[in-house]
Amino acid sequence: MYESIAVVGATGAVGRIILDQIESRKLPFRKLTLLASARSTGKKIQVGSQEYTVQPLVPEAFEDIDLAICSTPDDIAKWLVPEALKRNCTVIDESGAWRMDDRAALVVPEVNPEALKNHQGLIASPNCSTTQMVVALKPLHDAARVKRVIVSTYQAASGAGLGGSRELEECTQAVLQKKEFTPEVFSHQLAFNAIPQIGSHKEQGYTSEEMKMVYETQKIFGDKSIRVSPTCVRIPVTNCHSETILVETERKLSVEEARKCFEEFPGIRVIDDLDQKLYPLPNECTGQDEVFIGRIREDLSCGNGLNFWCVSDNLRKGAATNAVQIAEALLKETPVSS
Amino acid sequence: MYESIAVVGATGAVGRIILDQIESRKLPFRKLTLLASARSTGKKIQVGSQEYTVQPLVPEAFEDIDLAICSTPDDIAKWLVPEALKRNCTVIDESGAWRMDDRAALVVPEVNPEALKNHQGLIASPNCSTTQMVVALKPLHDAARVKRVIVSTYQAASGAGLGGSRELEECTQAVLQKKEFTPEVFSHQLAFNAIPQIGSHKEQGYTSEEMKMVYETQKIFGDKSIRVSPTCVRIPVTNCHSETILVETERKLSVEEARKCFEEFPGIRVIDDLDQKLYPLPNECTGQDEVFIGRIREDLSCGNGLNFWCVSDNLRKGAATNAVQIAEALLKETPVSS
Repeated sequence: MYESIAVVGATGAVGRIILDQIESRKLPFRKLTLLASARSTGKKIQVGSQEYTVQPLVPEAFEDIDLAICSTPDDIAKWLVPEALKRNCTVIDESGAWRMDDRAALVVPEVNPEALKNHQGLIASPNCSTTQMVVALKPLHDAARVKRVIVSTYQAASGAGLGGSRELEECTQAVLQKKEFTPEVFSHQLAFNAIPQIGSHKEQGYTSEEMKMVYETQKIFGDKSIRVSPTCVRIPVTNCHSETILVETERKLSVEEARKCFEEFPGIRVIDDLDQKLYPLPNECTGQDEVFIGRIREDLSCGNGLNFWCVSDNLRKGAATNAVQIAEALLKETPVSS
Repeated sequence: MYESIAVVGATGAVGRIILDQIESRKLPFRKLTLLASARSTGKKIQVGSQEYTVQPLVPEAFEDIDLAICSTPDDIAKWLVPEALKRNCTVIDESGAWRMDDRAALVVPEVNPEALKNHQGLIASPNCSTTQMVVALKPLHDAARVKRVIVSTYQAASGAGLGGSRELEECTQAVLQKKEFTPEVFSHQLAFNAIPQIGSHKEQGYTSEEMKMVYETQKIFGDKSIRVSPTCVRIPVTNCHSETILVETERKLSVEEARKCFEEFPGIRVIDDLDQKLYPLPNECTGQDEVFIGRIREDLSCGNGLNFWCVSDNLRKGAATNAVQIAEALLKETPVSS
């Protein structure tokens, strides 16, 4: 049982789902504090049967908090995480600010729970596009050792927060009514379009979002020899990221063997019957906590390759659900109090 | 100069652009006949300064026609092509019915003009998703020999014809207004969704659209050793297909060398400056005849790999423009009359 939990960024797209998940998964706690930026301070939010007033996000807010689950922009996370740690508050951080820091464990509980042992107070949750991919890769890696991954993403507007979802809807309305629209959240019109850039230019022609998929995957598997070749694309989908994944393994995996690996893995659901037009669709996976896999087939271009299609709710398993699952796993690992 | 050209399927999404292209590219002819199914017979269509009445598509219509440019469903193409050939009419066929037939040349004029020599009267234009890819691959193949291609597509509604474009718009309206919508053209709701199936289940878990990319690419390059690993996905874009392409070459190509290859190739335009957020976007490439390339970068997962993003108007270079370019090339190759 946690004595006192804080949810930071409680009014954001992910923050709201973190609160839902704490309630619906019955994460045990005595006290819950909701923190957010000045703009949202004073707002009232219902969690289960109780109403909470959003408190200001200041360093002192972390006094007497056991665990903070934080979903904020990177720049906020940069200052708040040290302030929380300094006050002996364990932090689960959703931002991209700390994931590759040596002091942070980077954890997807189904994939690398061992990284929670001897953590130093800071556990980062991976980027949404990485999380669903590493869940999909894990059973294949255990069975046949993953050597190389080629991934193209089809990412939803909600990955850019509530503002992203709103802009997609407003932009779509404008295009249908043949009205002018100036995008603010996305760098170009997203409605009826595909934007091959998520994040800024990071290195060697790759974006920050793409390099997250490279580095975070290697850190989670603890294996820098796993090579990842990513292209991240924003498409006009409201919620749920989709990915085409080609994985090359050391040992050849048949389609049947791969399907069995997926089906037996916790947190994965296989929907795969092309003749019946059955495969995961973003509009059907939204609001669900699993990683969905379909279109499993042998790669035609390489001996040990396997192609599949992977969809997951980027706000849930890609963010909120994974954070709350980390909180659950931490409780088993190092009971803060009981 | 052609004595007499027929455009078959003149009222369809591609047919209309074929007529535009014949006019704007000034394909030389003396007589033009517009043919279409019974439903469209009698319709009047303006081409340049002249009005044409759509004639019924019957076998006798091909008497005294030099060249028929045909854009029809596969089942129509199956019977009409032999009827036209039998009447000594050269056929440029957009459908998927004849492309892999040994009697058909499969041609993209910039890529394999040599296939037009000694053709047997039937020239097929490749599938839209193949055409833009082989244009992009050709200069790389010439420079460094393409061995393997991994491609994920982001395909537009217009690939399913006028009905596809209409359904995307109606479906989008319905979703925004929270109304029920039953898709008819697409197998699932396309608005705010991504459908990882185009065409029917063909073989080994791949769809017919995907296998077209495999077989047509090999036929166009005359090289069955080129291995293609495709995933075809329909996304809610009105027009223009996008593709993420990872190409592995025999000899290593630097990014600079690849960019130069692309820039010097006819029919390709490079838009590639990530820092300035410049790359091809489907909503900006619509209505243009070129194949657009951006996001050119070295693959991080393999020594001789190159990643890029490729966008083209599937109704133009992917269909109508390529057909009219074949007609132009044929005229140089084997002047039907002069």
